[in-house]
Amino acid sequence: MTPAAIIGGGVIGGGWAARFLLNGWDVRVFDPDPDAKRKIDAVLENARRALPGLLDVALPEEGGLSFHDTIAEAVTGAVWIQESVPERLEIKQQTFAAIQAACDPAAVIGSSTSGFRPSDLQQSSLRPEQIIVCHPFNPVYLLPLVEVVTTALTAPEILEQSLATLRGLGMYPLHLKKEIDAHVADRLLEAVWREALWLVKDGIATTAEIDDAIRYGFGLRWAQMGLFETYRIAGGEAGMKHFMAQFGPALAWPWTKLTDVPEFTEELVDLIAGQSDAQSGHYSIRDLERLRDGNLVAMMRALKGQGWGAGDVLAAQERAMREGHALGQRAADVTDPAAPVLTVRRAVPLDWTDYNGHMNEAKYLQAFGDATDRFMELIGCDAEYIASGGSYFTAETHIRHLDEVHAGTVIEVHTRVLGGGGKKMHLWHEMHAGARLLATGEHFLLHVSLDTRRPSQPAPEIDAALRRFADAQAQLPRPAGAGRFVGAPRDGPAGGGAVA
Amino acid sequence: MTPAAIIGGGVIGGGWAARFLLNGWDVRVFDPDPDAKRKIDAVLENARRALPGLLDVALPEEGGLSFHDTIAEAVTGAVWIQESVPERLEIKQQTFAAIQAACDPAAVIGSSTSGFRPSDLQQSSLRPEQIIVCHPFNPVYLLPLVEVVTTALTAPEILEQSLATLRGLGMYPLHLKKEIDAHVADRLLEAVWREALWLVKDGIATTAEIDDAIRYGFGLRWAQMGLFETYRIAGGEAGMKHFMAQFGPALAWPWTKLTDVPEFTEELVDLIAGQSDAQSGHYSIRDLERLRDGNLVAMMRALKGQGWGAGDVLAAQERAMREGHALGQRAADVTDPAAPVLTVRRAVPLDWTDYNGHMNEAKYLQAFGDATDRFMELIGCDAEYIASGGSYFTAETHIRHLDEVHAGTVIEVHTRVLGGGGKKMHLWHEMHAGARLLATGEHFLLHVSLDTRRPSQPAPEIDAALRRFADAQAQLPRPAGAGRFVGAPRDGPAGGGAVA
Repeated sequence: MTPAAIIGGGVIGGGWAARFLLNGWDVRVFDPDPDAKRKIDAVLENARRALPGLLDVALPEEGGLSFHDTIAEAVTGAVWIQESVPERLEIKQQTFAAIQAACDPAAVIGSSTSGFRPSDLQQSSLRPEQIIVCHPFNPVYLLPLVEVVTTALTAPEILEQSLATLRGLGMYPLHLKKEIDAHVADRLLEAVWREALWLVKDGIATTAEIDDAIRYGFGLRWAQMGLFETYRIAGGEAGMKHFMAQFGPALAWPWTKLTDVPEFTEELVDLIAGQSDAQSGHYSIRDLERLRDGNLVAMMRALKGQGWGAGDVLAAQERAMREGHALGQRAADVTDPAAPVLTVRRAVPLDWTDYNGHMNEAKYLQAFGDATDRFMELIGCDAEYIASGGSYFTAETHIRHLDEVHAGTVIEVHTRVLGGGGKKMHLWHEMHAGARLLATGEHFLLHVSLDTRRPSQPAPEIDAALRRFADAQAQLPRPAGAGRFVGAPRDGPAGGGAVA
Repeated sequence: MTPAAIIGGGVIGGGWAARFLLNGWDVRVFDPDPDAKRKIDAVLENARRALPGLLDVALPEEGGLSFHDTIAEAVTGAVWIQESVPERLEIKQQTFAAIQAACDPAAVIGSSTSGFRPSDLQQSSLRPEQIIVCHPFNPVYLLPLVEVVTTALTAPEILEQSLATLRGLGMYPLHLKKEIDAHVADRLLEAVWREALWLVKDGIATTAEIDDAIRYGFGLRWAQMGLFETYRIAGGEAGMKHFMAQFGPALAWPWTKLTDVPEFTEELVDLIAGQSDAQSGHYSIRDLERLRDGNLVAMMRALKGQGWGAGDVLAAQERAMREGHALGQRAADVTDPAAPVLTVRRAVPLDWTDYNGHMNEAKYLQAFGDATDRFMELIGCDAEYIASGGSYFTAETHIRHLDEVHAGTVIEVHTRVLGGGGKKMHLWHEMHAGARLLATGEHFLLHVSLDTRRPSQPAPEIDAALRRFADAQAQLPRPAGAGRFVGAPRDGPAGGGAVA
């Protein structure tokens, strides 16, 4: 698999390692810290828990992880080299020298620097055109944003390759037009950080109160629209100019203390650390990381349901992954219509589990519904067709919950056509985790007109595609459990499995 | 119903009106703007679309909305008076004079001011003890945060009443210990706003790029944890002190431009307004509001699934609403065990609909699963019992989707026991919207040990409670459609309804 080199482990380097590995890259790590392996393993454990289920398509096989004693060894053969060493310019420049002495001149060298400009990093380097800023955000394996900053010296093919690679990793590269210290996001963060320090120092609010003022209010706004789009709405129909006329003058008011920098005394550090202990000390950092990751996964998937923001980044990655895969085929591509069709292949996401610790019963139907959607798409009932006014509605569903499954496990659904043609479609889904049969779903659907909301004939090409599967599969033995009713006596091995 | 007075309509006053109305209060509006009714109706239309389904319990009947020609008339009889007039101190003070000349001295007078201190507002007022700052965030009908700011003059019972009322409205009152100009959240916002203006003015980033730098990165973090808890994690096991030692020094670096205020020239206003048009001009403000509300509802409900932040505020409101309601009863409170049990009463939330424009099939099972959970709780299989190691797992499910339903509609599920006792529980759910039967769900469950994950006997008191319902309901006629299998011939009116 394609190799990436991670120079400098820690939270950020480890996050990059996880992002690459779980997207199927081989990862070669150099970090002189004797604890590097333990630290990266801890990040990886979190990432394996949260990332795979974030998407509605299973990620490729995880790549291989190796640790190396020298930078030269780590970067050899790598097409991407990510530098995440401590934030001191001379260390970074020495690191680039060692990297460039051994690496492929066509590889991207991305720096995770939060403060330095790319021209600082390129200075006195062997091949400045190869070094760019790729500044990610913690947790790197979940948050999409990467600030990509280049200079006039940057090779166009390096930039192009970096944007394509980052998108392939499910990230959102934001290519900045000009370089400045600390790029864009950290300047905004820094402004808030200073103001927050004043609020704590002056006893206006505690760290917990400031966090509440953020997460119950504008934090929810900013997770989906940013500052300007939010204010555009606040301006109402009169628009952005009106908003600025109304609130602009406040800029000159003595609202903020940002005219100088609070002194970073031991007293202030103790005050903040003490308040933070009172606020979050009952959780370990590991607890907090897992709570955060669960929240991020659930919110990003919620945004995907709305077709917006970070959710759109997920959707784009899924579309790319389905291309050239069985999950992206159309009916005409299917050479053996007698075989059950793979309609879902995904990891169980964190937000699909419930108080019993396993996938919630409603998510079995969610997965079967996704399988039905995919089968509909396969036979031509896709978004375009639905927009033209036809669709299939489910009239009846029967599910046997045969076994439990937990977050992170890859599940597959294969779909059979028990009958179909005209207005009717009778589907049979089987959900497996490896060889384990987790559930079966039997569904009767009717084609409807979205205008009249009544049953109607599908388009002839959809009818033909459906009949091709139905006819070919009519020869298959009837699946055990089909036609079963709730509470029927056990009717063979499928009906007699463990409950879930 | 309890009356609230809204003095000043507009986006904020209208948002308050919607919050009160949809929580069952009567709302009495005074606003001299001839357009006030139209503006409030527009906010209300958005709120009715988004708020009711945010909770897993239906809100009470909407209160009555009336418009009044004088402040005196509007505030008469009100127990809460919310002032949202323009942000000029003399206008606010005149408004308080008019309010206090007519209102109940025991009513809370809350000001929506974003800038003024409560002592400014109380100044020269008739009863300063009655006036407090209650600063909400747009959209007021969805975001939980309210900054509550008081002074030494504030009556303790006014403060207490305000906190209880705001919590009852599903909000999160953050009571600040000290008053300052612009309170807490807007000081943080102001810091970001200034920095963002510099970034645009200097051509570093456009409004769209700044928004992306927020919403694909730290915005997602801040929607659930704030600044300090996020940084605590960044500090790793070494904690907050380590984080500050690592990043504190950056404060003294020349990262930010916040040492003076950018001049608010016409050129800067045009630049920002133009960029904002390019970014969001293809949406109307109404579009943007609805996109935002859909995102907020989906994210807040996602957080509720994780038991965190804004989701916990929703859960607290639901708990309070279930108290003293049929949905909060225990089995011993049920006097007629032969009657089907109300197990769900809720509005269909925005995030339960799909590309067909109606409630997605998987959400039928979600609602039936919620109904099963509620019935389990009723018979004593509650969170405490489950923590002790026993629970019911669903083994088999049959759903008839009989009719469509759309976001915002109130649905009810009534539950019958078709059989139960020992390890077994056989439930029958009927979902209605008013008189319309939307779906039936037939479910077979087994009691399991959460240690062995195998079927086991429930606690005797749960068994007894279940048998009491099963025995009493055995006399009821068998529901049409029970025992049906997928694709069975139509067996009566229930099986022959429209599809959904």
